[in-house]
Amino acid sequence: MKQLLTEEKVFKDPVHNYIHVQDTMIWRLINTREFQRLRRIRQLGTSYLTFHGAEHSRFSHSLGVYEITRRIISQFERSGYKDWMPEESLLTLCAALLHDLGHGPFSHSIEEAFEMNHEDWTCRIIQENTEITAILREVGEDFPQKVASVIAKTYEHEIVVNLVSGPLDADRMDYLLRDAYYTGVNYGTIDIDRILRMLRPYNGRVVVKESGMHAIEDYLMSRYQMYWQVYFHPVTRSSEIILRQIFRRAKELFQEGYSFRFMINPLSDLFGGEINVEQYLLLDEALVQTAFMQWTLEDDEILTNLCSRFIHRKLYKYVEMDHLDSETIDEIRRSFAGAGLHPDYDLEIDYPTDLPYDVFRPGEGFDSKQILLLDRHDKLREISEVSDIVRSISGIHRGRYHLYFPQDKLQKALTRLPVSIGGIFAK
Amino acid sequence: MKQLLTEEKVFKDPVHNYIHVQDTMIWRLINTREFQRLRRIRQLGTSYLTFHGAEHSRFSHSLGVYEITRRIISQFERSGYKDWMPEESLLTLCAALLHDLGHGPFSHSIEEAFEMNHEDWTCRIIQENTEITAILREVGEDFPQKVASVIAKTYEHEIVVNLVSGPLDADRMDYLLRDAYYTGVNYGTIDIDRILRMLRPYNGRVVVKESGMHAIEDYLMSRYQMYWQVYFHPVTRSSEIILRQIFRRAKELFQEGYSFRFMINPLSDLFGGEINVEQYLLLDEALVQTAFMQWTLEDDEILTNLCSRFIHRKLYKYVEMDHLDSETIDEIRRSFAGAGLHPDYDLEIDYPTDLPYDVFRPGEGFDSKQILLLDRHDKLREISEVSDIVRSISGIHRGRYHLYFPQDKLQKALTRLPVSIGGIFAK
Amino acid sequence: MKQLLTEEKVFKDPVHNYIHVQDTMIWRLINTREFQRLRRIRQLGTSYLTFHGAEHSRFSHSLGVYEITRRIISQFERSGYKDWMPEESLLTLCAALLHDLGHGPFSHSIEEAFEMNHEDWTCRIIQENTEITAILREVGEDFPQKVASVIAKTYEHEIVVNLVSGPLDADRMDYLLRDAYYTGVNYGTIDIDRILRMLRPYNGRVVVKESGMHAIEDYLMSRYQMYWQVYFHPVTRSSEIILRQIFRRAKELFQEGYSFRFMINPLSDLFGGEINVEQYLLLDEALVQTAFMQWTLEDDEILTNLCSRFIHRKLYKYVEMDHLDSETIDEIRRSFAGAGLHPDYDLEIDYPTDLPYDVFRPGEGFDSKQILLLDRHDKLREISEVSDIVRSISGIHRGRYHLYFPQDKLQKALTRLPVSIGGIFAK
Amino acid sequence: MKQLLTEEKVFKDPVHNYIHVQDTMIWRLINTREFQRLRRIRQLGTSYLTFHGAEHSRFSHSLGVYEITRRIISQFERSGYKDWMPEESLLTLCAALLHDLGHGPFSHSIEEAFEMNHEDWTCRIIQENTEITAILREVGEDFPQKVASVIAKTYEHEIVVNLVSGPLDADRMDYLLRDAYYTGVNYGTIDIDRILRMLRPYNGRVVVKESGMHAIEDYLMSRYQMYWQVYFHPVTRSSEIILRQIFRRAKELFQEGYSFRFMINPLSDLFGGEINVEQYLLLDEALVQTAFMQWTLEDDEILTNLCSRFIHRKLYKYVEMDHLDSETIDEIRRSFAGAGLHPDYDLEIDYPTDLPYDVFRPGEGFDSKQILLLDRHDKLREISEVSDIVRSISGIHRGRYHLYFPQDKLQKALTRLPVSIGGIFAK
Repeated sequence: MKQLLTEEKVFKDPVHNYIHVQDTMIWRLINTREFQRLRRIRQLGTSYLTFHGAEHSRFSHSLGVYEITRRIISQFERSGYKDWMPEESLLTLCAALLHDLGHGPFSHSIEEAFEMNHEDWTCRIIQENTEITAILREVGEDFPQKVASVIAKTYEHEIVVNLVSGPLDADRMDYLLRDAYYTGVNYGTIDIDRILRMLRPYNGRVVVKESGMHAIEDYLMSRYQMYWQVYFHPVTRSSEIILRQIFRRAKELFQEGYSFRFMINPLSDLFGGEINVEQYLLLDEALVQTAFMQWTLEDDEILTNLCSRFIHRKLYKYVEMDHLDSETIDEIRRSFAGAGLHPDYDLEIDYPTDLPYDVFRPGEGFDSKQILLLDRHDKLREISEVSDIVRSISGIHRGRYHLYFPQDKLQKALTRLPVSIGGIFAK
Repeated sequence: MKQLLTEEKVFKDPVHNYIHVQDTMIWRLINTREFQRLRRIRQLGTSYLTFHGAEHSRFSHSLGVYEITRRIISQFERSGYKDWMPEESLLTLCAALLHDLGHGPFSHSIEEAFEMNHEDWTCRIIQENTEITAILREVGEDFPQKVASVIAKTYEHEIVVNLVSGPLDADRMDYLLRDAYYTGVNYGTIDIDRILRMLRPYNGRVVVKESGMHAIEDYLMSRYQMYWQVYFHPVTRSSEIILRQIFRRAKELFQEGYSFRFMINPLSDLFGGEINVEQYLLLDEALVQTAFMQWTLEDDEILTNLCSRFIHRKLYKYVEMDHLDSETIDEIRRSFAGAGLHPDYDLEIDYPTDLPYDVFRPGEGFDSKQILLLDRHDKLREISEVSDIVRSISGIHRGRYHLYFPQDKLQKALTRLPVSIGGIFAK
Repeated sequence: MKQLLTEEKVFKDPVHNYIHVQDTMIWRLINTREFQRLRRIRQLGTSYLTFHGAEHSRFSHSLGVYEITRRIISQFERSGYKDWMPEESLLTLCAALLHDLGHGPFSHSIEEAFEMNHEDWTCRIIQENTEITAILREVGEDFPQKVASVIAKTYEHEIVVNLVSGPLDADRMDYLLRDAYYTGVNYGTIDIDRILRMLRPYNGRVVVKESGMHAIEDYLMSRYQMYWQVYFHPVTRSSEIILRQIFRRAKELFQEGYSFRFMINPLSDLFGGEINVEQYLLLDEALVQTAFMQWTLEDDEILTNLCSRFIHRKLYKYVEMDHLDSETIDEIRRSFAGAGLHPDYDLEIDYPTDLPYDVFRPGEGFDSKQILLLDRHDKLREISEVSDIVRSISGIHRGRYHLYFPQDKLQKALTRLPVSIGGIFAK
Repeated sequence: MKQLLTEEKVFKDPVHNYIHVQDTMIWRLINTREFQRLRRIRQLGTSYLTFHGAEHSRFSHSLGVYEITRRIISQFERSGYKDWMPEESLLTLCAALLHDLGHGPFSHSIEEAFEMNHEDWTCRIIQENTEITAILREVGEDFPQKVASVIAKTYEHEIVVNLVSGPLDADRMDYLLRDAYYTGVNYGTIDIDRILRMLRPYNGRVVVKESGMHAIEDYLMSRYQMYWQVYFHPVTRSSEIILRQIFRRAKELFQEGYSFRFMINPLSDLFGGEINVEQYLLLDEALVQTAFMQWTLEDDEILTNLCSRFIHRKLYKYVEMDHLDSETIDEIRRSFAGAGLHPDYDLEIDYPTDLPYDVFRPGEGFDSKQILLLDRHDKLREISEVSDIVRSISGIHRGRYHLYFPQDKLQKALTRLPVSIGGIFAK
């Protein structure tokens, strides 16, 4: 089934040094228009507004996920582990490579605004008559469906699903390393070689040899640090908030029949309702940014202001609060309205939280998100049973309320706000 | 004149670790819309199609140039060198930060297509009533003009000009390091700390302490390697060729009165003739890419085909030839026309060359592109007089002809080509 | 008081890139025979037997500690913090550079064997008529004593003591970075630039700006990981055990009047009792290793065997046990004796523990080992009050019993041991 | 023949990340006392006196050479190149691992002083009844002799010899990378992955695929830079000169019947004449350093002075001269004698030269030191025919005369020297 290239191809990659492609099919999948489209979707959305180096694309990341998966499988096969099925290798590699195929521009924000889900789009692009579908079909009529089922976590062989999306999957390992590299933040530098050496296929799961425990602790801590240093960075959140407000405002205007000076397909169809796969593939971040740039010249003040903020990076400021109840929130919104501020667009409340690792509850059996250690007697234990570090970070949520607002506008309205409310936002 | 921030600000940067901003003015210049626009212009144009990591922007690079300049000046001032004028520090930093401000989308190709020059645009943006002009004017009415004159190399104090654009300027040092980092190619790893330690201001020039000769040799070799490994990479050249063909074709069509399904400003005005600063600032790579994407749906087959090739990365293939005279070129074009191929769009001839270092001709005096070593007796010598390595690479051009063409189309026309011509392109 | 070199001197250092020396006095101290001796003392003792790259010396580390201290002070002075006294700069730098001066060969083991303390020796070398004493005296008769008092933590200005030995001192930062670099373990890669940027002198202490909390969490986690991955590595412990046994055995033999085939001064005087500073300075790891090598040819079987083990790296094996009470230990020793094994030399019990960070007890006031965060209202809080991560690792001891023994010898005696005891050591 | 370990063993290595050991025999060879002895021989001799980080041992380097060889072979076997003989794999790995086994303490200096050759010792240790001999014999009676013949370059299959010592052997690649890492100098950072990917076995030689030319240029330039920056560093040469003088003086004294306060075996036998393998294995740098330290207390002033200089790093200073003829040298020596300086011990003349790459002379056929490129038509060309860079550095010798002398002593004698001679040494 696997057909080897006459000579291995490589991509130069700053994170893994080289991405090695040995199968003809992988090579051809990479060269499809659907996969090339991932070059036009950033891996970290708006994070480049916080970390100027973070311009890397989902294309890079997808190659990285493929490469790590290739290394894991190759180690499984070299060691001849009986719980691995070598005949699943091509399927696993295809699923690893394609798992992010359905991401849209500024993925999280656009999904929220239009109630879509990138995983659904991934499965549709794989199966609905694209260049990718055609190539996959050469293996067998049902191969596209098989690849999609791995991504949808319904494929019959659990080990394949676990490799592509599990607590120690190649996806997470690549993004930690890659996001650390491109932001320049050095918290994500996990010892991937050591982690890979410690992985074992075991009863349909990827587990960790016990002596690899410290490497896993380090990996979970890196994940924790990257969440707080990068993924939840307040400046990034601020730009995401503006992004969501733009989508929200443009949709409102569209539905109210506002006549846009600039509109572009498939954006208009998206506002109107459904779009199909072909249209979806036209969506990329260049298109979204171009629309925003053009909208800085629209007539609607709210839209124009938001687009200018996004394009010229005049983001909302924020204040942090340890506690905030819904009554206070209502009070703030009411005061805002009273002071001539917009109760929705001029205030966003954000409460970022992360659970670095899911708590293990004895007696419930292992769940699919847990990391299991395999001791020398072939006994499995969930890692937080053994590691104090993991146990201690398992319960940490550590969220604080962040209130985002337009500093200049609020400054001017400050005298019209009750002192108790104004005090929250006064510097 | 310099006004310090109450607390130094930093940008996290993967190349320099941190970019340190100490002056209020620098901080405010970075936050202008004109400078933020550089986030939407890639540093390496189409190189990301060869090296998937090379998505970094001119924004990052400009910060890097500023940072290196800041470190050089700070070392000059710490050491109290008499040939440096501390009162020029703010001017130098502003010019270093802003020197790339006028770059357009896919700079080299667009400049060629529309006969523009990014340096002119830089000077215009600095001086023509932008946010940047307003900030610079706070120093003095003529400060914007002064900054522009440094960039235009006409400023009265040579040492300032030499720092911003000379053979050892911060621009080159940053791009070598940065492009190496983002492509993942490790030829650009120069020992910048050592180079900086060795620089001396001397009679209006930045020269090198003699004991730094090996560091400079290494720097010039890195430059040479980066040119051949990255900047002249045939795949990148192929994508630039297609880019230029797209601009050429669209302009032709525009001038012929072709009615575009999709057109966007300021692209139409650009095709029509002149654009002003305000319009120029709307141009970015998102806009160009969006136009190309939409043009994949146009009626003109040539334009549609070229845009598809660019967007979906189906680039031209190439063959290399050691020698190629103009007669042979004419013959190839004639044969192409005869075989139903387009004599211009289906064939591009490229001859990349680089002169890693300019030859020094004794008796002519030092020119501004030469690197001078300062020995312990305060005597200057041009580096190739002292370094065998530099002397030996000074004369190297090392170009070969590259013929670029659409592989699929040519394949089909192969039987209609004379054997002698077909043989050149047959694999 | 400070006398600057006409030109800054540098040492090329893999960890800090360059060590910058600006003061004549620092330069001269480095060139003394007492400081050069640190080249012959390894930073990590016997760890090179586990991590073959870890051959770096206390000389390197001492330069690194000096360099970090220099950077901290230089940042304090650039920012003009009022709680720092610039006139203490030279004293601080001297103390930082010299703080490890008294380390002996395989420091921890030799100190234990001969009941010595390296800090005492450091203070003596600084004050007892060495080349170092002479140089320091040029500042003032009492300057050597002042430097020693900083190291002994009795100097009047707390901030100086805190910089040289506190929970965030340059010593710890350098050794984490350096030991990680030379072992190749990448857990020690802390973001030192960020940490240094966050330090503030405050009321006689070095505290951390609140926004640096995550960097400190990362630093404490690195410390934790380095302890378990490197410093407590069982193979290193095994070699330290053999080292201590060699010293113990040689001393026993010496005191019993055994006539050594090979003996060398000042080792003999050390066995005999006291040695003076001049003699102590002759002690280095070359001398100790040479003695051990020669002792592989002695007549005493125990000594010969131990020395062979150390020199040829045939170390003791170990088994781990979660629990071990003193009765069981006695029983094992008795059984060993009964089976012809040596109850002391053939069994060593080790219980490595680490407290990554000292618990803070509310109501007790801040102690000198705690890390304090300074918030924007100039309020201090101990870090574990704010950081869940730090709080959760504060209480972790995580020790397990390790039993070390000569595998080959024990294997042969296995049948003579009770089954319950033999089972512990059987593979 | 190859017997695999039940589980691959690894060594953590800063340069290659992990050293992978898969064969039982390699594992056992590493654990012999002869191989462990390499831990006590520094890779770079006295370079640690110039670059304080360069304390790494021949043990580390030997593992590195083994690892690179393993990777090359593994790539040859994965690609199924017909010019490689898989049955030679174990032999090649053993020879790669053991090739430096015979190095003595401060190898180059001791070999010169005692007219020995480390390659001879390597072959003797492999064949003369050591632990290593015994292990190798398990493959076959003649296996030790085979391994030795590879190292001596007389083995029948050229490709094996070429892998272990050729112009692109693992030895050179490892030392460039390793010495760069430990000194901190970043000129040695070659792209080893790319080089390895480009190697091909071809007619008994390791050649390079043509597209790897730039990687080889970079490798040769790195070699050139490392020679001038590290290997020929004047401070290192100064310490080597003193080292040789110590050996010379001690030998003179020994032969004159001087009674040493401290003497140690096998040093005395070495001075006396021959030593055997068993004695040779007792020689290490700890022993030599210990002897030097003890000799700082001898009665002979010359020896004492030299040993103090070496141990306390009070090295000779030097002046550089472009030209120096034998008459001038004689004159200097005569003047020295006349001024009460020692004509030999107080003056050493050094002329370091390097030929970064051997010139290829057309018509002479390829010699064993040349690097050959293999083009797509399977035609071989010597690299300097194709690469301007390589051609231009091929002829470079670039030596200058360095005169080393004791600065303090010469300073005092300056007035007694003729002005013309004194002027050379006056600062």
